[in-house]
Amino acid sequence: MTKQEKLQDIQVKPDSFECSVTADITVFGYVDGKLKILLIKRSFGHFKNQWHVPGGVMEADETIEDCAAKVLFSLTGFRDIHFEQVKTYTELDRHPLKRVITVCFYALVRPENHPLTLRDNVTSIDWFDMDKIPEKLGYDHEKLINEAYLFVQNNLRHKLIVGELLPKEFTLQELQNLYEDILDVELDRRNFRKRIFQMDVLENTGEKKQGVKGGPYLYRLKQSKAIR
Amino acid sequence: MTKQEKLQDIQVKPDSFECSVTADITVFGYVDGKLKILLIKRSFGHFKNQWHVPGGVMEADETIEDCAAKVLFSLTGFRDIHFEQVKTYTELDRHPLKRVITVCFYALVRPENHPLTLRDNVTSIDWFDMDKIPEKLGYDHEKLINEAYLFVQNNLRHKLIVGELLPKEFTLQELQNLYEDILDVELDRRNFRKRIFQMDVLENTGEKKQGVKGGPYLYRLKQSKAIR
Repeated sequence: MTKQEKLQDIQVKPDSFECSVTADITVFGYVDGKLKILLIKRSFGHFKNQWHVPGGVMEADETIEDCAAKVLFSLTGFRDIHFEQVKTYTELDRHPLKRVITVCFYALVRPENHPLTLRDNVTSIDWFDMDKIPEKLGYDHEKLINEAYLFVQNNLRHKLIVGELLPKEFTLQELQNLYEDILDVELDRRNFRKRIFQMDVLENTGEKKQGVKGGPYLYRLKQSKAIR
Repeated sequence: MTKQEKLQDIQVKPDSFECSVTADITVFGYVDGKLKILLIKRSFGHFKNQWHVPGGVMEADETIEDCAAKVLFSLTGFRDIHFEQVKTYTELDRHPLKRVITVCFYALVRPENHPLTLRDNVTSIDWFDMDKIPEKLGYDHEKLINEAYLFVQNNLRHKLIVGELLPKEFTLQELQNLYEDILDVELDRRNFRKRIFQMDVLENTGEKKQGVKGGPYLYRLKQSKAIR
C-alpha cells in the first residue's frame, strides 16, 4: 500500500469495515449506604448460565441511548431510568460470535423503586453487593462493572449525579450523608457545603424541613442542572 | 413481532445490524495559559473544504485506541500522544455517507513539542483559540469539541491530567499556575495543595528547585499514577 493509499484508507468509504454495536448498562442500586449492582442470567445465547449486566444490540434506526433504554426495559422492565455513558470497549475478541464493540452506561437507582420481576428469557435477576459479585461473569462484564464503579465514585466528587437517590427536596445534611455513604468517607461539613455551592446546582426552596423546630432549609436541584 | 422474538432480537446474531466506527481526536494545546484546539482540512472526501478534528475509520484488526493513534499519525505526524475517551456519538445522520458512529478522544499537549507539518492529503492544519473556532466545522465536530473541552476542564478538577504540560519535575506553584490557567480561576494556595495531596499522585523528589535560595521542593508524578 502506498502512502497515499494508506492515508485515503482512513476515510470512511462504502465498503469500510463494519461491526455490531451493543449497549451494556451497569445499574447501581443504593441500599442502606451501600452500592449494589444489578445482574441477570438469560435463558439462551452466549453466557446464558452466567451472570452479566443487561445488554443488547443497537439497530439501524436507533441511537445507542435508544438501545440502552430498550435493552433495559426488555430485560428488567425498568423504564425512565437516567443513564450516562462510561466508556466504549472495542477489544477484538470481546464477543464470542463476532466483532462487537459495546458502549457501557451506568445508572444509579433506589432498588425499592424498581421491584425485580422475571421477564421472558431472563432466568435470574438480582442485586449484588459490590464486594460479592459472582465469579466468572459473562463477556468482559467484570471489567465494565469495575470501571463503571470507579467512574460513579469519581463523578460524585465533582458532579451531582444523585439521580433518584434523594427526595425532590432535601436538606444539605441528607445530601452530605448520601455522599459519605457512596464515597465511604467522612466529609468535613463546612468544606462539603462550600464545594456543593461552588457547583451551583442547588436552589433553596425557602421551605424548612417539617418536624424539626427551626429546622434546616430544604434544597432542590436547579432545573437546568438536574439529571432527570 | 412476538414478545419472545422482541426479546431475542436484542441478542447479537450473525446478521445483527453493523456500522462503521471512527475515532475523532480533539487535541488541545496549552500555550501561554490558553487552551487551543488542533483542526485540519483535507484534500478529498466529505467536508474537504471545512475545518474538522483529525478522525478516521477503525479496521477489523485494531481497537479504537489503535485507530486513534493511526489516524493522528496519518493526519498530523504526531506520535506517542496520550489520549483518552470522552464519549461515543451515534446519531443516525451524523455522517453523510452511511451510518457511522464515532468515539471521541481528547489529548492535551504542548504545541511547541509538535511542530505542524502538512501531510499528504491534508491541505491545512492549525491551532485555534477556543473562542475563535471557525464556523461550520465538518460533521458534528463543533459539538465534539465543546463537550471535550468541558470534559477536560471537569477532569482537571479531580484528576491529574497534566499530560506533557509540565516538566518531569515541577514545583507545587508551577502545578497551581497550570491549573489556574486552564480552569481560568484563581485558586487558594492552601486548599489547592490539600486537594492535590488528597489525590495521592505526587511524590517529593527530595530535590529543591535550583536558582532559588532555600527554594521549593520539586515533585514528580508517582509512576503508577502518571498518565504517560
